[in-house]
Amino acid sequence: MTPLERIQEVLDEAVALARTIGVGAPARYIPELANVPLELTSAAVLTVEGRLCEAGDVQDHVFTFQSSAKLLTLIGLLEERGPDAVFAVVGPEPSGSSFASVARLETHGPSPANPLINAGAITLCGQLQGTVEERLHWIGSWAERLYGRRLPVDDKVLASERATGNRNRSIAYFLKSNGVLPGDVDDTLEVYFSLCSLSGNVVDAVRLPAILATGGLVPGTNERVISDQTAAAVVSLMATCGMYDESGAHLLATGLPAKSGISGVIVAIAPATAGIAVASPRVNAKGGSVRGHKILRHLAHTLTWHFALPRA
Amino acid sequence: MTPLERIQEVLDEAVALARTIGVGAPARYIPELANVPLELTSAAVLTVEGRLCEAGDVQDHVFTFQSSAKLLTLIGLLEERGPDAVFAVVGPEPSGSSFASVARLETHGPSPANPLINAGAITLCGQLQGTVEERLHWIGSWAERLYGRRLPVDDKVLASERATGNRNRSIAYFLKSNGVLPGDVDDTLEVYFSLCSLSGNVVDAVRLPAILATGGLVPGTNERVISDQTAAAVVSLMATCGMYDESGAHLLATGLPAKSGISGVIVAIAPATAGIAVASPRVNAKGGSVRGHKILRHLAHTLTWHFALPRA
Amino acid sequence: MTPLERIQEVLDEAVALARTIGVGAPARYIPELANVPLELTSAAVLTVEGRLCEAGDVQDHVFTFQSSAKLLTLIGLLEERGPDAVFAVVGPEPSGSSFASVARLETHGPSPANPLINAGAITLCGQLQGTVEERLHWIGSWAERLYGRRLPVDDKVLASERATGNRNRSIAYFLKSNGVLPGDVDDTLEVYFSLCSLSGNVVDAVRLPAILATGGLVPGTNERVISDQTAAAVVSLMATCGMYDESGAHLLATGLPAKSGISGVIVAIAPATAGIAVASPRVNAKGGSVRGHKILRHLAHTLTWHFALPRA
Amino acid sequence: MTPLERIQEVLDEAVALARTIGVGAPARYIPELANVPLELTSAAVLTVEGRLCEAGDVQDHVFTFQSSAKLLTLIGLLEERGPDAVFAVVGPEPSGSSFASVARLETHGPSPANPLINAGAITLCGQLQGTVEERLHWIGSWAERLYGRRLPVDDKVLASERATGNRNRSIAYFLKSNGVLPGDVDDTLEVYFSLCSLSGNVVDAVRLPAILATGGLVPGTNERVISDQTAAAVVSLMATCGMYDESGAHLLATGLPAKSGISGVIVAIAPATAGIAVASPRVNAKGGSVRGHKILRHLAHTLTWHFALPRA
Repeated sequence: MTPLERIQEVLDEAVALARTIGVGAPARYIPELANVPLELTSAAVLTVEGRLCEAGDVQDHVFTFQSSAKLLTLIGLLEERGPDAVFAVVGPEPSGSSFASVARLETHGPSPANPLINAGAITLCGQLQGTVEERLHWIGSWAERLYGRRLPVDDKVLASERATGNRNRSIAYFLKSNGVLPGDVDDTLEVYFSLCSLSGNVVDAVRLPAILATGGLVPGTNERVISDQTAAAVVSLMATCGMYDESGAHLLATGLPAKSGISGVIVAIAPATAGIAVASPRVNAKGGSVRGHKILRHLAHTLTWHFALPRA
Repeated sequence: MTPLERIQEVLDEAVALARTIGVGAPARYIPELANVPLELTSAAVLTVEGRLCEAGDVQDHVFTFQSSAKLLTLIGLLEERGPDAVFAVVGPEPSGSSFASVARLETHGPSPANPLINAGAITLCGQLQGTVEERLHWIGSWAERLYGRRLPVDDKVLASERATGNRNRSIAYFLKSNGVLPGDVDDTLEVYFSLCSLSGNVVDAVRLPAILATGGLVPGTNERVISDQTAAAVVSLMATCGMYDESGAHLLATGLPAKSGISGVIVAIAPATAGIAVASPRVNAKGGSVRGHKILRHLAHTLTWHFALPRA
Repeated sequence: MTPLERIQEVLDEAVALARTIGVGAPARYIPELANVPLELTSAAVLTVEGRLCEAGDVQDHVFTFQSSAKLLTLIGLLEERGPDAVFAVVGPEPSGSSFASVARLETHGPSPANPLINAGAITLCGQLQGTVEERLHWIGSWAERLYGRRLPVDDKVLASERATGNRNRSIAYFLKSNGVLPGDVDDTLEVYFSLCSLSGNVVDAVRLPAILATGGLVPGTNERVISDQTAAAVVSLMATCGMYDESGAHLLATGLPAKSGISGVIVAIAPATAGIAVASPRVNAKGGSVRGHKILRHLAHTLTWHFALPRA
Repeated sequence: MTPLERIQEVLDEAVALARTIGVGAPARYIPELANVPLELTSAAVLTVEGRLCEAGDVQDHVFTFQSSAKLLTLIGLLEERGPDAVFAVVGPEPSGSSFASVARLETHGPSPANPLINAGAITLCGQLQGTVEERLHWIGSWAERLYGRRLPVDDKVLASERATGNRNRSIAYFLKSNGVLPGDVDDTLEVYFSLCSLSGNVVDAVRLPAILATGGLVPGTNERVISDQTAAAVVSLMATCGMYDESGAHLLATGLPAKSGISGVIVAIAPATAGIAVASPRVNAKGGSVRGHKILRHLAHTLTWHFALPRA
């Protein structure tokens, strides 16, 4: 069996195991998310050599990228303005709080703890220049570089986010009153909601973590898309903050730095080995896909992909 | 230049750079710590092949291991009782608070957020069986396995910890009232203070992180000391929680999972590459050695030891 | 000297003493507040028998009622819907936090701690029925009953509140996401900002606390305006919560339940004796008028108006 | 019917009503408290003229004064050292937290929010001079002045407090590490536990609030025991902080400044009218006697004893 065949075998096993899990449910605060069929489960692995494995309902399972797309703005700004500019407006620390916390901005502010919680990602959307349209164009360009194409925005989900996004509005106005969100709040939220509503399948989603796994190159072609410094910074932040207040448990269980999205997507990185994307709508109280967790644990254990262990 | 000569060169540079830093001071809450000469600076690297590099005042610089020794009890208990037993009494999450916080036990309790903050380490000392003497014997045995010898306790520092350890007493009694600290509180604190007062130099200190870097083997002999699962778990926790509320900043800056001690020691891991120990008494407000930070950053950048980047 | 002459004498003394205080400054978050001349200082006492004493720059000193007008909506809703309806949406407890805290809504929510902090007052504005215009009409009617006339809204201050009210927007959207703010958020904030922008002088302001001091009657005419139960409830809440996180210090120092406004107004109650209104633009970090504090302390001590002491 | 007969009638009604309540239970953290028969209910009113009314199981119902005795040290220190000395070590503000909170000391420290929560009362016990014996002698002297006799310490309850007082130990060591608790922690806790274990019945307990109701005189004899300033200060603090995090609800419901004890005692004050003591072991989650609440509400409403209302 080739190494790639082995990955495919383990990925198939992992998806089959995940399908047996019946707990978790779509987040209620974006009602439109509940319109994705609950049992859809899909996964993809893209190795640093550019070999792709897929499993599950890949073609039928289109989802919005939600908070996993926070990586896009983070990467784009790190590349264009450098870490000093980015970490002047957001911190690099796990917050110890849930992803939508305002309390921490009040007790530890003015800036958000890190760029991967909602407050941090909204702050970065506020750093983008120009009109809403110009900012969405910027996002589209970076989507092309990181995901391989200008992913479409799911308009129904976008409308749902707008309609029910009061917690994010509260965060944004708090940031505004803290002096860390320049410009019009509604415009910045429109950009943020649109970013979260980028949609695709796991084959779209897996390209970004695979680029991070290589240290910034497109797997296969070795075209450099981002610097190794940006890649290393983003993977570090995913390790400590990417899974919100289950980041510690996740890294302990898998050793795969990751970023979750409330739609049930998780993208993860086995450094120097592969990018991984998993998706399934059932999420837990901390916003992590329950089936996605299972798939990542099975891959990590069976293939010894924990970052702290020598490759088998 | 051989790879080892290159490491030695970079380590020498790093120590020289660090010596130019004049900020930071010993923590006041353990007065005895101030008796170590302020300018002492030492560092050691032990590669997974068992090759040792040293730099700075290695022989003159004996220090207490302080919170870096929290790794010993964590490793010992993971090995003897398994992760389920350990994570039944402590969590795996960064706390978002300072190392000596009691507030989080009140708001997010009953258990400590993770085993590497004071509350977590005291909880683990409370899990050790037997009298104080028996528990110190257990620590001595694990010191032998992990540090290569039964490190002596520095009696003056121990006396200083006992005399001024009121914050730790507050933590311990809070844990007791939360029902997560069985047995006598004074006994458990005596064990904890003694653990923190283990003393040695960076050559002593570097063996443990080097064992973690190999996935549990003694570098050079490849004797297995702990399981790869324990090693991976501990490195994961160091990545997310080892530097307290600068863990995120540290991993971002270096990519080296690490654990700090208030005496100015930091032990760090370049997975599958090397263990590192650095020491210098000047610490910042979060308890991290300012010169130690500099050394680790220089090593990580110059040798491309960030965990997320392919080795150069 | 008649008792009324004695009150006048002490009030004059108090204002003269207050004028010597040079600390404090208008709150920056409503820039328009800084347009009231900084040294203006005025005070009025209205006894339960209906006798009025004035001192200072009464006619020249017109100010917005700001948070002191929170009493209006509280009283109106207590009268029209009863305490059960009111305390179904806000609590009766001091919050232990500053007046514009969102953190507490997150940690102790979903409802605001009390009706006199911003979150609580916005919640009550959300309970008012109808369009913005209808709600402002309702406020006008209650202003007529409690202040004796339909106080004008200061349009410049209202514009300033709208322009800079991001913290209040954050609070309102948090309340919305917590499910305790029905209706349109912008509409409710418009009502809240308008309420805060009601303007008048201390003779206007003193009527409401005098009505509370009598247990609900208009001093002089003894016309009943509100029930004794409503009056007692409001005075109780002023005692524990009216001065935000200096409520305890204020009651200790004066024994006069009170409500502050960020414009530098404080209304206070000597039960069964008199209502008091003081105003001066210099406020402290907790939003209380520094000269107003001085006037109230002098009155309370000299006239033995502390609620817990028998009248001299 | 004389006014006194009316008070007796209402008190009898109130106790009868209270006996119908079956919710609440003794606090578990002092196991010995559960040895007082659960259904015992007693109440006393002492008017400022010195007339006593009793109702319920007065003679059979001996209880420890618990946190209601915090008033004794507060009064004694206010008298002997003045408010400046007292408020140099404790604040005057409601904490917004539960009575045994340590978190607030960490976030808002170094000093306790007020003298009536555990942290504040322990701080005041730390201000008493001399050995444990000398401090207990001081307490005995003040018990004689305020309660009319040197109340005995209930040794079984004292032993129970000592055995299970880990939360209070945590508080005390936190205060020590914050620099606000001089002297030996164990000694101060012994004084605090002994203070809480003073025992008597409601006739003993009612004398102190009656002295406060008069402004510092013994009802009947008009002997001055404490200054009117001390009395006013203490009643103010009871109004805002005496019932912990139900102080606001309590004052709203009754208008009677009060102090609860975990044994089920509540002492309350109708200023210039009467002192009240009620007791019954069933307490709620905030440490307040559920039957005691009922008795106080019935008295306040029926006799119009709310501090903010003119006497009927």
